[in-house]
Amino acid sequence: MTEQITLYTAKVELALSESKLPYKRFEIDLQNKPEWYAPKVNPASKVPAISYGGPDVPPEDPSPDSQKIAESYVLLQFFADISEVPLLPKDPILRAKARFFVETVTPKAFRGYYTVVAQGEDPELLLDSIETVQSLLPAEGYAVGEWSIADAAITPFFARAEVAFKNDIGKFANGAGQSTWAKVENDDKYARFRKYFNDIKSRDSFKQTFDADYIKETFMKRFAKA
Amino acid sequence: MTEQITLYTAKVELALSESKLPYKRFEIDLQNKPEWYAPKVNPASKVPAISYGGPDVPPEDPSPDSQKIAESYVLLQFFADISEVPLLPKDPILRAKARFFVETVTPKAFRGYYTVVAQGEDPELLLDSIETVQSLLPAEGYAVGEWSIADAAITPFFARAEVAFKNDIGKFANGAGQSTWAKVENDDKYARFRKYFNDIKSRDSFKQTFDADYIKETFMKRFAKA
Repeated sequence: MTEQITLYTAKVELALSESKLPYKRFEIDLQNKPEWYAPKVNPASKVPAISYGGPDVPPEDPSPDSQKIAESYVLLQFFADISEVPLLPKDPILRAKARFFVETVTPKAFRGYYTVVAQGEDPELLLDSIETVQSLLPAEGYAVGEWSIADAAITPFFARAEVAFKNDIGKFANGAGQSTWAKVENDDKYARFRKYFNDIKSRDSFKQTFDADYIKETFMKRFAKA
Repeated sequence: MTEQITLYTAKVELALSESKLPYKRFEIDLQNKPEWYAPKVNPASKVPAISYGGPDVPPEDPSPDSQKIAESYVLLQFFADISEVPLLPKDPILRAKARFFVETVTPKAFRGYYTVVAQGEDPELLLDSIETVQSLLPAEGYAVGEWSIADAAITPFFARAEVAFKNDIGKFANGAGQSTWAKVENDDKYARFRKYFNDIKSRDSFKQTFDADYIKETFMKRFAKA
């Protein structure tokens, strides 16, 4: 596999980093989208997306000869299909468990993070999503034992939630983000999640691809209290 | 692969039929759920679900030694992983296209069918979802050329919509289902969808697993006009 990969924006970069596949990245500012992005990369104008294959060209000038692929979960499974490093187990039952984990946790985590930060829902909803994660995790390790795209799929929600809640950035009541995150960090009830989340954050893939300062800055612009 | 498969309810049966894997089926009436179903098969009490492997026992008495797997799309991908008949292409780009098709069409089709029939939204929403299907279909064949689980994933929406709309069963205005379905059947604009839908319906897997009379009867009970 030596096809070029250009990644537009970072939400699935964790898995690409784990894959060891070489890639170029290009950050798309959706608030101020370059005009070539929709016609040349993703007609739906969303991120993340990749160009795959074709000639080695600058990200700003994607070739019509490369394939364009969009949607986070589609991309994660694509990386699992092309990577020589296993990003999903070979065992079909564990693969089904990985997919079930993603399908079950994603809507809960979206609610517990995004509706809280962007729409001012009760920050305690995050605890609910953390309990769902805990109910599915095995006693040790990641979602299905070894690290997989199941973990990659849900990491952005919790890593972004940490930035927002710890810094109390979001449309919720003053202090409610911080007090909720203090429970995540201290309550015995969330010990299994803490271990899991720390395991994820200690991986090189996370350290190399998650930029907390950048997320904080973006969130302060978008979700500051009125 | 000679593990036993027991399927609880039929929403993913199309793919199982295409796979040629042997299975037993057991219809779960969610309105009147057997009490063993949640504790022994799916704690979320939803269908479809399967038991996989373990001893060959009656569906009403699932063994704790079999794996239990739930969620339609998780099951479809599981069948693709274990089937010797290809239910997804081998090419990673076509696999990504199949998954993109499912992720794009599913929310539209859900809106164009379920919110219309169950909640009385405008039946013309169905036409919108049909245009989305058409925008993604290649000139010939199925979602990614050969039949795949991408087609299996969206078939139930349209097959059930046909039963509901043609018979004008649903919470929408009198006659609005029939007049919308007449457009699907006659308007030149929907010719590509018609070809696609007929190709699906002419397959043995569809004929053997879709029971229009049963769907009609269930819908008349659940969605009859007030």
